[in-house]
Amino acid sequence: MDRLSVRQARQESAIGQQARLQGWVRTRRDSKGGFSFLELNDGTCLANIQVIADAALENYESEIKHLTAGCSVTVEGQVKASGGKGQATEVQAARVVVHGLADPDSYPLQKKRHSMEKLREWAHLRPRTNTFGAVMRVRNQVCRSIHDFFQEDGFLYLNTPIITASDCEGAGEMFRVTTLDPANPPRTDQGEVDYTQDFFDRPSYLTVSGQLEGEVYATALGKVYTFGPTFRAENSNTSRHLAEFWMVEPEAAFFDLEDNMDLAERFLKRIVTDVLANCEEDLDFFQQRIDNEVRDRLGKIVEGGFARTTYTDAIAALESSGESFEFPVSWGADLQAEHERYLAEKLHGRPVIVHDYPASIKPFYMRVNDDGKTVRAMDVLAPGVGEIIGGSQREERLDVLERRMAEQDLNPDDYWWYLDLRRYGTVPHAGFGLGLERMVQFVTGMANIRDVIPFPRTPGNAEF
Amino acid sequence: MDRLSVRQARQESAIGQQARLQGWVRTRRDSKGGFSFLELNDGTCLANIQVIADAALENYESEIKHLTAGCSVTVEGQVKASGGKGQATEVQAARVVVHGLADPDSYPLQKKRHSMEKLREWAHLRPRTNTFGAVMRVRNQVCRSIHDFFQEDGFLYLNTPIITASDCEGAGEMFRVTTLDPANPPRTDQGEVDYTQDFFDRPSYLTVSGQLEGEVYATALGKVYTFGPTFRAENSNTSRHLAEFWMVEPEAAFFDLEDNMDLAERFLKRIVTDVLANCEEDLDFFQQRIDNEVRDRLGKIVEGGFARTTYTDAIAALESSGESFEFPVSWGADLQAEHERYLAEKLHGRPVIVHDYPASIKPFYMRVNDDGKTVRAMDVLAPGVGEIIGGSQREERLDVLERRMAEQDLNPDDYWWYLDLRRYGTVPHAGFGLGLERMVQFVTGMANIRDVIPFPRTPGNAEF
Repeated sequence: MDRLSVRQARQESAIGQQARLQGWVRTRRDSKGGFSFLELNDGTCLANIQVIADAALENYESEIKHLTAGCSVTVEGQVKASGGKGQATEVQAARVVVHGLADPDSYPLQKKRHSMEKLREWAHLRPRTNTFGAVMRVRNQVCRSIHDFFQEDGFLYLNTPIITASDCEGAGEMFRVTTLDPANPPRTDQGEVDYTQDFFDRPSYLTVSGQLEGEVYATALGKVYTFGPTFRAENSNTSRHLAEFWMVEPEAAFFDLEDNMDLAERFLKRIVTDVLANCEEDLDFFQQRIDNEVRDRLGKIVEGGFARTTYTDAIAALESSGESFEFPVSWGADLQAEHERYLAEKLHGRPVIVHDYPASIKPFYMRVNDDGKTVRAMDVLAPGVGEIIGGSQREERLDVLERRMAEQDLNPDDYWWYLDLRRYGTVPHAGFGLGLERMVQFVTGMANIRDVIPFPRTPGNAEF
Repeated sequence: MDRLSVRQARQESAIGQQARLQGWVRTRRDSKGGFSFLELNDGTCLANIQVIADAALENYESEIKHLTAGCSVTVEGQVKASGGKGQATEVQAARVVVHGLADPDSYPLQKKRHSMEKLREWAHLRPRTNTFGAVMRVRNQVCRSIHDFFQEDGFLYLNTPIITASDCEGAGEMFRVTTLDPANPPRTDQGEVDYTQDFFDRPSYLTVSGQLEGEVYATALGKVYTFGPTFRAENSNTSRHLAEFWMVEPEAAFFDLEDNMDLAERFLKRIVTDVLANCEEDLDFFQQRIDNEVRDRLGKIVEGGFARTTYTDAIAALESSGESFEFPVSWGADLQAEHERYLAEKLHGRPVIVHDYPASIKPFYMRVNDDGKTVRAMDVLAPGVGEIIGGSQREERLDVLERRMAEQDLNPDDYWWYLDLRRYGTVPHAGFGLGLERMVQFVTGMANIRDVIPFPRTPGNAEF
């Protein structure tokens, strides 16, 4: 007898097979004819399979008639054609083994709908719901596409360090990592905390980006990408921020900004194409139950090319738009969410890549243009969500890089190894970053970023 | 003109193509005939491609004749058949653009061999060497195989949390993660550190395993795997330990120990098969330069089945072996490295899975056998390295699990959510863990684990 997943058993091709299915009961309905219908789910797809359990089964009265939502069972029987709506097949059970019950008086996931807030308190049970099962399957597909895309394109997967003693570009508040006794840390003669006695002999932190280390490997092996956890110790309780999130950062030697924009566009199209092809059932669910603009938004990614505009042209377009923005538009200021949305949604009606931003609002490592005022930065803005990718061509000229670091009061000694990459065999190179959870929000329409990661980490939340 | 990688340009099929190649010069050799040979490497393969640069090139005297190891160039020209040894092709340069020099007086990577210790100090430059290029390509292949294997088998990729407030099974020393001022932390009225003012409102740590959270998702969605960084704050300076390493942990509902052993065996075979098929050139390098037993060891993984033995039988075999071991052999004690090597290398001459260990030496979550003395644990021992995978069937019975926790003095309140998985719809399930760096050591023969990860983290080392 073959083990079949619910997904497999729902295919017409399974009809006639003797099969073993294993999963969790979603509902039980008893017919007047003296048998029961069990809706069985095993997480392999959104839909359940209907199991028909006859009164003749030996444990029908003792066990089957007591099954409730969440109980776990093994069902053996034959897959048959079904006349029921929305299902090609069903299973006529020859045997039902009950593994575990789920007392309906205490099991939280009863049929009523629960708020997303409530489900976050039950982070260990919420993957058993339709919504979180669908989110996780789509998240898995996005991750798979990320790896497939880069691997097929010759990029090497790179694990940059999580614990680091360097503070990349001062990109944000960092978490400290330590083994010192917090109540009574060792002190120097001057009374300062003596970090030479900490595990790494110096203050150490959780990484905010693997970019600088990615550049090390790109300038040795050509094309690399990181895909790992990243951290921000910002005390922001919003629907768009996590203290711990996953980020993808490709970095490629001999890429200029044009190559980088082409790569970002191909990359986003690939992810969305794969999700559309492989997650149809889950997308229907998101479209109907979560966000009825999901499919429209995804269509805009895969149909036609992205618009491209310089920051300077974008500012001019915003100034002459006739819109009244809350934040003033002026050359030299960062684009606000409302500006980004106008550009992507109203002006272009499709994703737009804004490039060549003012140097004054961008980090030191971005390549300075000949005008001396702008740098080779790029942001991909998507309709409905705004910035989804940020990247740049990197400054490969040692003298320019050192000047930019001095302007931003960075100590070159802290970056000796990063500067060595320019000192020895420097090459033009470029890369970008994509936040995995933002991408999963984009393709599912889930409103809160805490609901697209298995166990969200935010201020005050580190349980499970 | 096509961009070709060195790997592509070395194929006979490239002969005749006009191509642009970009990379780093390994050596320059000037012929008496008035031209130079450049050996060019771009990281896409171990081998270089030979570039012939004629004296007629406009920058021949001014630039090309000054190229040294590490200089970066773009070469445009025609790929031609080569009569040279070990190369099917070479490139006749029509143009050579020099991007960056590498002053031979200060560039560390000159032709002489450097010790592994020295190269660790130059972690930002060592990927430019043959050895570390080869390690990184093989590491990438192993990672790719891991994802491909599980994805093709229907496992969902799961990101378990890095920061956690729970201490999984007390598996080892943990790093604390904090945003409190180390010099002057807030205190309670009793003078204790007031963790309610820390970022997560409680003491928080870096994860030592994603297993318990993996079980949450396996008991909802069926088959999942984690693949992420894991931490141990152990002060051990050995060639087998890192403070930060990457671990793969599959977890599957309705799997018993037999299923788990089958999965582990198929998994290892798949990784090794892929490495043998796709990393032939790099493997030749490891075989010749690093460890001349590499290919033999890999052959033992893919040829034939793994041996399987209970712990009890293994102890009996060790006792009757006639070998004199340093550590005594007795039922109830853990197997030492010398015992593991005897079993895999001498007794079986192939990988062996030892299973059903004494309960007293294993964690609380492993399923207790009917004998009450052993648990459904398994270790995969490989010739040449010893334990490479450890796993178990998990205890799914609430009462047994609670009893085991009490025996090990664990507080059930700390595991309320883990116990809920048994309280509601519990199912048999199993899983295992594989350390990525141990696996890369196994397939490359690299002696020190610090040399198979881009930026090793060990006591006193967190630079880069």
